[in-house]
Amino acid sequence: MTIDEKILIFFLNAVGSNVGMNAPITRPYRRIATEEGWMTPEMAAMYRTALQDGSIDDPGFRSLWGFFAGSTSERAATLYRRIQDLDDERLRDMDALGIDMQLLMLTAPGVQCFDAATGTALARSTNDTLAATVRRHPTRFAGMAAVAPQAPQEAAKEAERAVRELGLRGVVINSHTQGEYLDDPKYWDIFAAVEALGVPLYIHPNTPSPQMIEPFLPRALDAAIFGFACETGLHVLRLIVAGVFDRFPRLQLVLGHLGEGLPYWLYRIDFMHAGIVRANRSPGAKPLQRKPSDVLRQNVHYTTSGMCWEPAVMYVHGLMGADRVMYAMDYPYQVVADEVTAMDALPLSPADKAAFFAGNAQRVFGIAPGPVLTEGKP
Amino acid sequence: MTIDEKILIFFLNAVGSNVGMNAPITRPYRRIATEEGWMTPEMAAMYRTALQDGSIDDPGFRSLWGFFAGSTSERAATLYRRIQDLDDERLRDMDALGIDMQLLMLTAPGVQCFDAATGTALARSTNDTLAATVRRHPTRFAGMAAVAPQAPQEAAKEAERAVRELGLRGVVINSHTQGEYLDDPKYWDIFAAVEALGVPLYIHPNTPSPQMIEPFLPRALDAAIFGFACETGLHVLRLIVAGVFDRFPRLQLVLGHLGEGLPYWLYRIDFMHAGIVRANRSPGAKPLQRKPSDVLRQNVHYTTSGMCWEPAVMYVHGLMGADRVMYAMDYPYQVVADEVTAMDALPLSPADKAAFFAGNAQRVFGIAPGPVLTEGKP
Repeated sequence: MTIDEKILIFFLNAVGSNVGMNAPITRPYRRIATEEGWMTPEMAAMYRTALQDGSIDDPGFRSLWGFFAGSTSERAATLYRRIQDLDDERLRDMDALGIDMQLLMLTAPGVQCFDAATGTALARSTNDTLAATVRRHPTRFAGMAAVAPQAPQEAAKEAERAVRELGLRGVVINSHTQGEYLDDPKYWDIFAAVEALGVPLYIHPNTPSPQMIEPFLPRALDAAIFGFACETGLHVLRLIVAGVFDRFPRLQLVLGHLGEGLPYWLYRIDFMHAGIVRANRSPGAKPLQRKPSDVLRQNVHYTTSGMCWEPAVMYVHGLMGADRVMYAMDYPYQVVADEVTAMDALPLSPADKAAFFAGNAQRVFGIAPGPVLTEGKP
Repeated sequence: MTIDEKILIFFLNAVGSNVGMNAPITRPYRRIATEEGWMTPEMAAMYRTALQDGSIDDPGFRSLWGFFAGSTSERAATLYRRIQDLDDERLRDMDALGIDMQLLMLTAPGVQCFDAATGTALARSTNDTLAATVRRHPTRFAGMAAVAPQAPQEAAKEAERAVRELGLRGVVINSHTQGEYLDDPKYWDIFAAVEALGVPLYIHPNTPSPQMIEPFLPRALDAAIFGFACETGLHVLRLIVAGVFDRFPRLQLVLGHLGEGLPYWLYRIDFMHAGIVRANRSPGAKPLQRKPSDVLRQNVHYTTSGMCWEPAVMYVHGLMGADRVMYAMDYPYQVVADEVTAMDALPLSPADKAAFFAGNAQRVFGIAPGPVLTEGKP
C-alpha cells in the first residue's frame, strides 16, 4: 500500500465510509495492543549472567528466565529472539497480525530483580532506549516507563523524567519487588508521582514472590498459566485494602489478563472485606472510603493480554464498562492471529469496538489518534 | 403448616399447578444448598486446645480459627454458635431462608490438621454423628463424608464405609493436608475408592498452605476473600496437570465458590498448558489425554457458595452447562436472604432453575427427590 492509499483510507475511515473502494480494508478502527513486551540485549545478557552465577536467587525468576533463556524449545527460542527486536521482525509481525501500534513495556521482572543502584540505572537507560524506539517509529510504538521500586524516591523521579522529558505514556511495575509489595507506605512516593503526572500505572505480573511460589513449581503452574494471576491479583488487593486509593483517589491502574481474575470476585471481595472490617479482624484491613469493587470499577482499566476469548472479555466488558476494557495481545508471549479475529468478532457496537481497540488506549495512555497502518491480515 | 398442607403443596408442585390455593408458595422447585458447614462441639474444643497449646502451627489454621474461635465480634460469635448446631437453630434458619435441604460437610480444615491416627478416628466419629443427624431429619439434611488423607489407605476405607454403610453422599477434602497436595500418587487410592463408589469428591477450600500463605496475611487476604481461591484453584490444577483424570476418567469433582475462579481462566490455562507440554518444560507437566478445559467441563461441577451473584453465576452457567451448576449458600459463613432472592431471579428457564436448585444436586449426590418443605420467606 502506498502512502497515498494510506492517507485515502485514513480519510475514508474518518468520514465513516469506504464506498467506492475495492474493499481494501475491513475494519474502521485502529488496533493498539496495550501490553507488549520487550527487553534489550544488554538486559538479556544480565539475566543470563544472573542465572549462571546465582546472583539472583528468586525461584520465580530462575523458573521463568531459566526456561526462556535456556530452553532449546521452539517456543522459548522464538520468544527470546522476538522480545529483543524493536524494528524489523516486530514490525513484520505487527503487519502480519494487523496490529497498528504496540504499547511497549520492559518485560517482567524488568529492573526489579537487581540491587537498587543497578535497577535505577537500568531503568534510565532502558527508558532512553524505548524513547528512541518510539521516535524511530512514532506511529507504530508507544512506551511505558520502567522504574526500580527498590529505590522509591529515585523511582518517582525517573517516572517524572520518563513521562515529562521522554514522552513515555505511564509507568509499569511488575508486581512484587524481591518479595516486597507496594502496599508498604515506603513505596507511596511512587503513587504520588504517578498520580500527579496524570498517567496510569500498569501493574504487570511477576512470578509469585519467593514467600508463596513453592506449591506452584512442581507442576509448572508458577507463571502465566496460574501463578501470575494469584501473585498480581493479591498485590492489587493488598493495595486496595491498605487504602492506597483513599490516599490517591485519582490514581489509575491498568491490569492485564482481564484484571488477573479480580472481576470474577467482585461480589465476594466486597462481602468478605466488609466482614473483616466490621469484625476488626486485622490491623492491616481498616475501613475504606469505598467498597473494593468501587475501586476496581473506578480506578482500574483492564486489558485482554492472553485472554482474547469472548466469554471472559464480554463478562468484564459488561461489568466494568466499555471505557475500561482495552485490547492487548501479549506479544511475544502469545502471538495468535486467530485471537485478533476473535476480538474483531466481539458482539460490540461499532463505537464500543473502536473504543476497545484504540479509543480507550488513546485516552488512558494519551496516545495521539492515528490511521489504520497495518497491511496484513486479518 | 400442617403435614397435610405440605402433602397438598407437594402434590400441587408435582402436577405443576397451584390453582385454587391462596398462593401459599411461589416456587415450583425445592432448594438444596450444597456446601453447608458444620462441626461438632468436640472438634471445636480440639481446635481451641490446638490454638492454645500451639500443637497446630499451620498459620492459616491459626489465622482462621484464631478469629472464629477467639474473636468477640458478632460475626465470629454467631458463626461459632451456628456451625455447631445441627437441629433447632439451623432448621429455623433454613426455614427463614427458604432452604429445604442442606448438604452438610465438616468445615475446613476438618480432620486434616491432626496427626494421622487422630484424624482417622475423628473422621469416623464425625461421619457417624453426621449420619445420625441425617437419620433424624432425612428430608432436611444430607451429608458428605470426612476423610483423613494423612492416612490414605484408611481414608479410602472410611470413604467406602461412610458411603456404603452410613449412606453419606460423597467425600469432602479441604484442599491441602498439612501442606501436601493430592497430586502426589501416594494419595491416589482415595481417588480410586471414590471413583469406584460412583460418588463425587468435593474439594473444599482450606487456607493457603504454609508454603504460600505469608503474603496473604498482612492484609487479612488469606481466607475467603482471596486466599481460598488461590489455594484451591492451584490444588485442582495440580490434579489436572498431574494426570489424575487420565488415570480416573470417571472421577467427578465438585468445587464451591463457582470453581474457585478456574472458569475465568479456561482459555489461558489451555493455551499455556499446551505451551508448557510442547516445550517439555517440566517433568511434572506431561502430555494429557484431554485439554484442562475439557476436564473442567466434563469432570467438575460448580456450586455457588459465597458467589450468589448473577453475573458470575450466569458466566459459569453459560460455559459449563445447566447440568453442572448447583446452588449453595455457604451456611453459616454467608447467611444472606437477599442472595436466595437473587438466585430465584436468575434469567433461567423453569427447567434450568429447577436443575440449579435441586435437580442437579439430586443427580450428582444421589439425593432422593422430595417436596418443598420450608415455610419461610423468600
